[in-house]
Order: sequence, then C-alpha cells, then structure tokens
Amino acid sequence: MIVFSLLFSFLFAMDPAPNHAPHLLTKELLDESKPSDWRYVDQKNLLYLETEKGLVLIELMELMAPNHYLNIKQLAENKFWDNIRFARSQDNYVVQWGVSNPKKMKNVKPRLKGEYFTENLPKKLLTPLEDKDTYAPFVGFFKGFPMGYHDDKTWMLHCYGALGVGRDEAFDSGSGTELYVVTGHSPRHLDLNITLVGKVRLGMELLSTLPRGKGPLGFYKDKKKGAKIKSIRVGTQLPKKKQLRLQVLRTDTDLFRKLIIARKYRQESWFHYRGGRVEVCNVPLPTKIVSK
Amino acid sequence: MIVFSLLFSFLFAMDPAPNHAPHLLTKELLDESKPSDWRYVDQKNLLYLETEKGLVLIELMELMAPNHYLNIKQLAENKFWDNIRFARSQDNYVVQWGVSNPKKMKNVKPRLKGEYFTENLPKKLLTPLEDKDTYAPFVGFFKGFPMGYHDDKTWMLHCYGALGVGRDEAFDSGSGTELYVVTGHSPRHLDLNITLVGKVRLGMELLSTLPRGKGPLGFYKDKKKGAKIKSIRVGTQLPKKKQLRLQVLRTDTDLFRKLIIARKYRQESWFHYRGGRVEVCNVPLPTKIVSK
Repeated sequence: MIVFSLLFSFLFAMDPAPNHAPHLLTKELLDESKPSDWRYVDQKNLLYLETEKGLVLIELMELMAPNHYLNIKQLAENKFWDNIRFARSQDNYVVQWGVSNPKKMKNVKPRLKGEYFTENLPKKLLTPLEDKDTYAPFVGFFKGFPMGYHDDKTWMLHCYGALGVGRDEAFDSGSGTELYVVTGHSPRHLDLNITLVGKVRLGMELLSTLPRGKGPLGFYKDKKKGAKIKSIRVGTQLPKKKQLRLQVLRTDTDLFRKLIIARKYRQESWFHYRGGRVEVCNVPLPTKIVSK
Repeated sequence: MIVFSLLFSFLFAMDPAPNHAPHLLTKELLDESKPSDWRYVDQKNLLYLETEKGLVLIELMELMAPNHYLNIKQLAENKFWDNIRFARSQDNYVVQWGVSNPKKMKNVKPRLKGEYFTENLPKKLLTPLEDKDTYAPFVGFFKGFPMGYHDDKTWMLHCYGALGVGRDEAFDSGSGTELYVVTGHSPRHLDLNITLVGKVRLGMELLSTLPRGKGPLGFYKDKKKGAKIKSIRVGTQLPKKKQLRLQVLRTDTDLFRKLIIARKYRQESWFHYRGGRVEVCNVPLPTKIVSK
C-alpha cells in the first residue's frame, strides 16, 4: 500500500484528508442494519407493472406531484395500460408507454399543470448530500427519492429509474397517461422541465434491457415490436395475497448518513483512490422483498 | 410563455441570465457543420467487436494508456476473444468479457501497471467545460473523450460507453485481457481506480441490452447464458473492404464549443427551464458512418 500512497498522494491532496476517513463499508453497514432502518412501501404508493418477462415495482411519490399521483392511480384502476405495448426505448435515455392525449375518462383529468417542484417540503426533512452537483444548488434525499433544492423549492431528480410523465410542448399537456422511466445516464437537464412522480424499486432490468426502437427518439417503427405490458395496478387495487412486502432502506437515519460516507470514501480494498465524494444519482438505495 | 416566465423566474435567478442565452440548437449546429468539424477515426484505433446481433465500434485512446493499448491490439491480433461469451452484465453498471489471468501469450505482457492518468497531455489541448463536476476539479474533452484534470494530471472518465480494463485488487493485476464497458449511470467513483482505454462510438445498444446475469455482480451463473462474441479486431487487422469509415465530431472546434452552449441552455421549445449547465457525461458526441 506504500506504493499506492505515493502514487496517489497528489490526488488525495485534492480532498480533505480522505486517508483518514472512517472505516465504513456498505456491506457491513447493511449487515448491521436494524429493522427500524427499513420501511415498508405503502401499498397505496406501490405500482405493479407486470411485463411479459416479470414484475417491475415502482414507488409513487404523492407529495411532489399530488395531481398526477391521483390520475395515475385512477388510470391503473381503469386498467388504462393493460395489454398495451411499450412505445419507445431509446438507448441511454428512457423507455416510454401510453399516450399523451387519450379519450375522456371517468375520474381522470385530461390535462394537468406540470408539477415540477414543491414548496411544501420543509428542508429539515431532507437528508443532505454535501458534495457539489452540476445541476442543482443543493441535493439530498427524502423518503428514498433523490431531490434538488434551493430556497423554499424542492424537486425530484432524473436519476436512473426515475418515473416521469410524458408531455407535449405545453406546460399542461401531460396527465399521467403517458409515462417514462430513465434507463441510461441520468438526463438531469430534464429536471424542472417535466413532472416526476416515482422511482423503480425492483425489476429495473426488465425495462433497461428492452430492445431499442429503430425510429427517431427510439420509438418502435413497427408498433408490434414493443414488448407487451400485461397490467399496471396500485397495490391497494390487488387482492391481499398478491401484494408484495417491499422494504426500502430509510434515508432519514444515521445508518443512511453512514452509507453516504461509505460511498464517498470507498474503504473496500479494491479501491486505490478514495475520492471523498459521491454524486446524488450514485448513492444506492437497497431494497428487498420480505416474505409474509 | 408569460406564465412560464413567472413560474420559473426563481429558478432562472439561480444562473447568470440564461434567458439571454444565444439561440443555438444542436440540430441546427450539426446541419451547418463543415467537413472540417469532423474527423475520421484512425483504423489503428478502431476496435471492431462483432457480436451475434451486430457490430460494436470502439475507439481506443493510446495516449492515456499506452501499454494497455498495445496489449489490447496484440490480443485482438491473437484472436484472444474470438468465440468467447460475455461473462457479466450488471444492471446500471457494466458488461464484461475475457479473463484477468490468461495463459502466457506471445507479445502480450501478462501484467501491466495501472494507467490511471497521464502527465503528457498539455492542458491547452483540452476543451474545458466550465460547469461544476461532483468528482473532478476540472473537466473537459480531448479527441472526443471526456476527461478530468487537475494540476498537470489528466484522466479519462467513466461515462456511459467507456471501455475499461478489469483488474483484481493489485495495481498491476490487469493486462487488457479482461475488458468492460459502462452500461448505466456513469460510475464516476471508478475514475482513477482502474485503467480506461476507449469509448464505444457505435452499436452501444448491443451491449446495454444484454440480459443481466443472475449471479453476484451480474456474472452469468450459467456461463452459456452469456451472448457470444464472434470476434474482436482492430481496423488495421481487417481487409480494406471490411473497414468502416467512422466519423466523430471533433471536440477542439468552435462548433463543439457552441454545441456545449446549446446543451447548457437548451433553446428547443419543449424546454421550459433552461438550466444553464451541463454535466460532462451528458454532452453528446455525434458519430456517423460515411460511405466510401
């Protein structure tokens, strides 16, 4: 290790004493986690996207986009997306399904104003990440969702796995009928431009490996090339025996703050250079299905 | 647009006058590009990775990792990877192939010291990106490769599509026999920890959609589940008629500097919030195959 120390001394010098970082490893932290470090995702916020190859579980976030949240739940209740096909899969960007201008439907608002940020989230509820971010003045976590914030505004971030609401050009041209999930390097330039409403918690690989569409923007030229969506439901719309108990690591705990430090100063022996920083979309959020 | 201006005035205020950004659109810039804005990738630096589903083209970068560059070219000459299978595909991370400790081979060095950065790249040759970066003090571009730099050191970045050299724990345990490509959100914590030696220029979707392995770290439990690699060759090892003329946008031009501005201030009418910044891994690098 002396060789490495010499080799990298210039690099270490870029940071405040990362050589003296505490010994924290992600694996050890998780192994030592207590039940209270985890939370169950409420069935009313859990979207079950059943594809031909398996199940994708997405957690919805009511506070950040309450009107889209209601519409999406009602659309699932209406079986709006059942038996349709993915419309788009663009490499290093998004997969997308549904349509932006459907027929009128009971209890569904046809157009919603964009819900790009909220003023209803007190900053003290966020777990901050202190590293620099290219796009947001401040970043952190709230209930397992990466967030940007500034003054009294908080907004969700386009990290890998984020669920967003397609729209046309106008601010009120989305409704929740057309949805997308980020499947590539986080396109953070979309932040504050479009409504985000959730994040994939399990089964992400079923979306990220969908064949890319050959048309412009990754749309399938032949619509029948898109993989089929069997159904989309909210947990509370399912029979109890079909509900899955999904646990997600809490992000408002000491354990999670330690996990951030562990990811900043990577003490695993494989790492030669422990950078001392982590980007908000690179902080992992462990999840697990718990048997009943 | 008045509504948007009011709604977003607080956000615009975060940046120096992005409302007055010049009208530059990526599409218009590329439409107006001159032949001198493009360069051909030298066949001696072009790796042809032939999969069962098509061709992936990777540009190698000699200056940043000269010893690994030589080894990899020799390994291709030796047909080292022909008819093997991808060993690993981990969601939101990498695909990987080859082995780290092969048998002794003619003209191939079995172990190489990590080539994590160079001191041989004068800063004036870099096109800087002025936005904040979480991981590197400074970032920019050199010959189409995203780079970090600090003092007299320059290093390649783990952006989507980066080609790296697998290694075990020791600094000199890689050789180029085991390679990986980034297929998810850019794992920039790997920067300065492992040798990068190229970037995928075409056919990335053939790697990013490979089925994920079910074993730890995305390794295929059943090795036969990995898709087959038919062959890997350098352009100069192919007959002339099999060589493809691949053009990549130059990154040392006024056009590219304008492209960066266009990506910072997104003037496309779809965007409501023009953030005024862009992350180094989010700057696209246009490429095209030119007929002979």
